[in-house]
Amino acid sequence: MNLLLDAPLDMHLHLREQEMLHLVAPFSAVQFAGGVVMPNLIEPVDTLARLRAYRAAIHHACGAETFTPYMTLFFREYSREELIAAKDEIIGLKLYPAGITTQSEAGVRDFDRIGATVALLEELDIPLLVHGETSGFVMDREREFLPVYQWLAETFPRLRMVMEHITTAAAVEFLEKFDNVAATVTLHHLMITLGDVAGGLLRPDLFCKPIAKTPRDREALRRAVFGGHSRLLFGSDSAPHPRHKKECCGCAAGVFSAPVALPMLVQLFEEAECLERLPAFISGNAQRFYRIAPPAKTVELRREAWLVPDLYGSVRPFLAGQELRWSLSDEQGKG
Amino acid sequence: MNLLLDAPLDMHLHLREQEMLHLVAPFSAVQFAGGVVMPNLIEPVDTLARLRAYRAAIHHACGAETFTPYMTLFFREYSREELIAAKDEIIGLKLYPAGITTQSEAGVRDFDRIGATVALLEELDIPLLVHGETSGFVMDREREFLPVYQWLAETFPRLRMVMEHITTAAAVEFLEKFDNVAATVTLHHLMITLGDVAGGLLRPDLFCKPIAKTPRDREALRRAVFGGHSRLLFGSDSAPHPRHKKECCGCAAGVFSAPVALPMLVQLFEEAECLERLPAFISGNAQRFYRIAPPAKTVELRREAWLVPDLYGSVRPFLAGQELRWSLSDEQGKG
Repeated sequence: MNLLLDAPLDMHLHLREQEMLHLVAPFSAVQFAGGVVMPNLIEPVDTLARLRAYRAAIHHACGAETFTPYMTLFFREYSREELIAAKDEIIGLKLYPAGITTQSEAGVRDFDRIGATVALLEELDIPLLVHGETSGFVMDREREFLPVYQWLAETFPRLRMVMEHITTAAAVEFLEKFDNVAATVTLHHLMITLGDVAGGLLRPDLFCKPIAKTPRDREALRRAVFGGHSRLLFGSDSAPHPRHKKECCGCAAGVFSAPVALPMLVQLFEEAECLERLPAFISGNAQRFYRIAPPAKTVELRREAWLVPDLYGSVRPFLAGQELRWSLSDEQGKG
Repeated sequence: MNLLLDAPLDMHLHLREQEMLHLVAPFSAVQFAGGVVMPNLIEPVDTLARLRAYRAAIHHACGAETFTPYMTLFFREYSREELIAAKDEIIGLKLYPAGITTQSEAGVRDFDRIGATVALLEELDIPLLVHGETSGFVMDREREFLPVYQWLAETFPRLRMVMEHITTAAAVEFLEKFDNVAATVTLHHLMITLGDVAGGLLRPDLFCKPIAKTPRDREALRRAVFGGHSRLLFGSDSAPHPRHKKECCGCAAGVFSAPVALPMLVQLFEEAECLERLPAFISGNAQRFYRIAPPAKTVELRREAWLVPDLYGSVRPFLAGQELRWSLSDEQGKG
């Protein structure tokens, strides 16, 4: 049995730079028609010049594959001129609270000072993408950030805002309050809880930010996604780290899910008996919310089991060593 | 300024075997007059012959230092004859739910079947030490186990029972219900929360079972311990693993706190302005509850800063690289 998916999109993706970019980009390019590329490089992507150079590097890394990198600028105070100049080349600005995750030190330290730039985003109809966590207790960070989302949504009622990689029942509930707010959901947060990360042996390969939460939270995410919520968008948050950064006395946060994203999503939706809702989650909802028209591209999956390798280059992928039921068709390969 | 501590006791201690035993035992022997030795070796200590051999090995590893290993037998179904024969050589039986932590596979699978042995413990006045966790969601395991404690305490009202390494506010509250129940508290659970383990980089060296909980739970432990609760006993749960078991794709659970236990405890009680309550926590409460008379031994600490090494042999200690304000006196050394 084969399955054809039209223009799958990954609305939250870390492609990194240099060798890592060349290692990981093909996995996304082969499965997706496009992806929202995060700007938290070692030097943040916060100028149009840097953005263009990064986009060119991504195109180069994707080779002949049809793949649109939807570029984001790292949130800082921008002038109207800067935003007007950038508007046609970006899908949005990505806001990080300072220090909240990998390479976010240049992020926002004082939320009282972001109003002017956010007002420009609203006026120019540029979406705002937000990593919504406080620096509080690790299990409470997303919930504690909800008042900031609330303030943004109420103060800027025409702003299109995306709550990135939500992980809690509270965030799912929050989504009901505002029609102009959407949220991305990762593959791994549909599958794991904190118990998978730290319940048996400690699993650095499942450690990510936001950290996986409780079974109740996962259930709320699954119910909303499998139930066909129209403002939930697939965003893998695939975030590769070389193995040595995952196995030291402090391990970096990030799950590298790009190689398994589509096959595993198909399996999950099939298990939940709602395969008919997958296209909206991985493409339709995002096209509508972001008002984008991705390139024509059909990705074919076959019901044929394969074993996820332990390593791709220096990176351990999500679900390493496990057997998946669906695979990419031959021409698309498995990388 | 010097501080003299009479007969400090570590009421929960993993000494391991072979080379590891020889590496770690001296750290405990130099700081404590005795310690309760856990029986979860690769082959569980569940016969008197094995217990005697292990005790001899511990004495050998402690060298000339005065140190009483209070031995425990691994809980299984024992006959009256076995328990009578063992009574004078053990401080209690240690019960593990099967598979709940390192080397606990031989533990209890069916709690409906433990009644006969527990009744013998009650009759023979042998304490029962319990690792009280279910196999549920990692943050809920201790709380979910409380009904088992409740059942044991109500069914066997004269049994002396110790809730080992408690980590939650709920367990502290539970302690109020039964006078014949005590609990051990580790050094690290007085200091860290899940946020320290997984809030920044992931820290395998702070990963332990039970996992560190919320700030509210830690506060409840601190309030009870620093408030001088008479049935809270210090038990380090110092549990060394070689570095390679802490830095793989699945990291073992255990904090090696033996080298820093007394100096850091003094610092904590001093910071909490209740140094006068330290002797009860590290000795008096345990002597009374267990009805033991440890060997005469005075341990001297000096107010002199020292830096905790990154490694002792192959093991990374708790607080590695940090400066502590109190050290053991010269003769006792820092190992």
